[in-house]
Amino acid sequence: MPVGTQASVKALTPGELYTLGAEIILGNTYHLYLRPGHNLIRALGGLHRFMNWHLPILTDSGGFQVYSLSSFRKIEEEGAIFRSHIDGSLHHLSPELAIEIQEALGADIMMCLDTCIPYPAGLEQVRSATDLTTRWAQRCLMARTSDKSLLFAIVQGGMYRQVRQDHTYRLLELGFDGYALGGLSVGEPKEMLFEMIECSRPLIPDYFPVYVMGVGTPEDLVECVAMGVDMFDCVMPTRNARNGMLFTSFGHIVIKNARFADDEGPIDPECGCYTCRNYSRAYLRHLFMARELLSYRLNTIHNLYYYLGLMTEMRRAIEEDRFHRFRKDFYRKRIK
Amino acid sequence: MPVGTQASVKALTPGELYTLGAEIILGNTYHLYLRPGHNLIRALGGLHRFMNWHLPILTDSGGFQVYSLSSFRKIEEEGAIFRSHIDGSLHHLSPELAIEIQEALGADIMMCLDTCIPYPAGLEQVRSATDLTTRWAQRCLMARTSDKSLLFAIVQGGMYRQVRQDHTYRLLELGFDGYALGGLSVGEPKEMLFEMIECSRPLIPDYFPVYVMGVGTPEDLVECVAMGVDMFDCVMPTRNARNGMLFTSFGHIVIKNARFADDEGPIDPECGCYTCRNYSRAYLRHLFMARELLSYRLNTIHNLYYYLGLMTEMRRAIEEDRFHRFRKDFYRKRIK
Repeated sequence: MPVGTQASVKALTPGELYTLGAEIILGNTYHLYLRPGHNLIRALGGLHRFMNWHLPILTDSGGFQVYSLSSFRKIEEEGAIFRSHIDGSLHHLSPELAIEIQEALGADIMMCLDTCIPYPAGLEQVRSATDLTTRWAQRCLMARTSDKSLLFAIVQGGMYRQVRQDHTYRLLELGFDGYALGGLSVGEPKEMLFEMIECSRPLIPDYFPVYVMGVGTPEDLVECVAMGVDMFDCVMPTRNARNGMLFTSFGHIVIKNARFADDEGPIDPECGCYTCRNYSRAYLRHLFMARELLSYRLNTIHNLYYYLGLMTEMRRAIEEDRFHRFRKDFYRKRIK
Repeated sequence: MPVGTQASVKALTPGELYTLGAEIILGNTYHLYLRPGHNLIRALGGLHRFMNWHLPILTDSGGFQVYSLSSFRKIEEEGAIFRSHIDGSLHHLSPELAIEIQEALGADIMMCLDTCIPYPAGLEQVRSATDLTTRWAQRCLMARTSDKSLLFAIVQGGMYRQVRQDHTYRLLELGFDGYALGGLSVGEPKEMLFEMIECSRPLIPDYFPVYVMGVGTPEDLVECVAMGVDMFDCVMPTRNARNGMLFTSFGHIVIKNARFADDEGPIDPECGCYTCRNYSRAYLRHLFMARELLSYRLNTIHNLYYYLGLMTEMRRAIEEDRFHRFRKDFYRKRIK
């Protein structure tokens, strides 16, 4: 479960992430390209050394942030033209530059630059954006200068089964180290998200890692793992922590709720995280109401512990051939 | 060196403060009275338990925040009337309530409610505010319901030697567990600050702890210790950390300075703190420029390590009877 980062997972140190059991983190190419710049990070020995994280790093291609953050963008055959959300400067992100940046960062897993397709979108728009994603993926393959970093391609195809399936086959033909299912969790109904995974996941041979990008809630993770997904990335555990939404085995709680004002219990009596072992809901509510920086930290530690623990439990259940039972128990606890 | 807090030293956990060597922290009566409320904290077992800090806590009386934060205030014989900076609600802080709150919090050291005198102020105003502070100190003594908490009085007297000296004698007559020199660091010239300490400190017998409130820079601490001061509290190490001003043995650095962009060295090569052992100036500058929460933490850890270390060094130098030499070395390093 990579945890997103612009060379820092917000309130936490790399050492804390390691202690929480994180085995891989995600570095944002868009952010690091704009600030402090990939050439600076390369000169300082790469992102691992720069941020003092010595386990794998996956870098995204920057395409999604160009789509979601930049104030102006234009997609051309050559690449994406966009304005920085920091200073308005104009930039051109080509597939070749996306690879150059990710290699400079020293990524263990790089992602191909893809085009982001909004939801809803018509069939013609989806087809043409998906075809462009294929040509960009091919250029990414060509742009690699070494095999030190793995390269994953991103399946697009909007919400059209046929386009997704065709695209999956096309990318498999080109040959990558792993495959991501992209363009999901963009506002479509949940059944549609699951349908898009269900129709494309089985086409990818089991020895490839399959990565669903930008997903999701604990329930989403369980359902996606049930469909054979291996990897996820999502802001949900960390962003929601900062907003005071805390995940537990029985559902989530909103810490600012007045009923927690004098609650001496931990967030989740079944949780073994640092926050639950040391602080009461009453104290966490106070920190949140007072907007103390410690609030972000303690909440983030809890939510990451929960998410990383959920993934560990699912891995174990699969290894011990009892995933079906695990899934039933997972929902039973939440209903009570 | 108490470190100020509204039940959290901003970016750090109590466990980290302990690891840094902090032996006492300061809880703000004004903040905790308004939010979450002293009765709630009492019901939850006191401030130590609430925030999970098991070493001594000093609480201020709330008087200074009434003076500096509240949107309306009026000082009467009975106490201070003020409006909350949070919701504008009207409150009345009497000496008796200040003690009630501090006892409810479970302070190890309580401070008497005092009146804050602006700088500059005329002799008549200073005399009358100082006399009121004496009467309030007397009422604080009467208001104590147990001897579980020590009670310190605060010497006022503005910038008038005679008024300060008279006030010191007056408070010594009343009899407290320790004495603070207050109303300093309010905009007066440095020589005046030192003169006010110099004229009143020697009047207090050596077996009482002497505490200068709201001071100061590393140089200030060295000079005050040279004059026989034992305790300080100040936002400087933590607030300046959050603003990117980092203290070192050779002076301070401003981390956002462009010359640190590719600087692989630590903040201070002679520093053994977690931040200096693990992160470069280049990375710390990046975190600061990107306004990452981790920036506040790593900078705060460094500055507190520096301040607490400085106090430890001074204690040792005094014990080994070489403070004069220590002080010379301290300034020699900073000049280079």
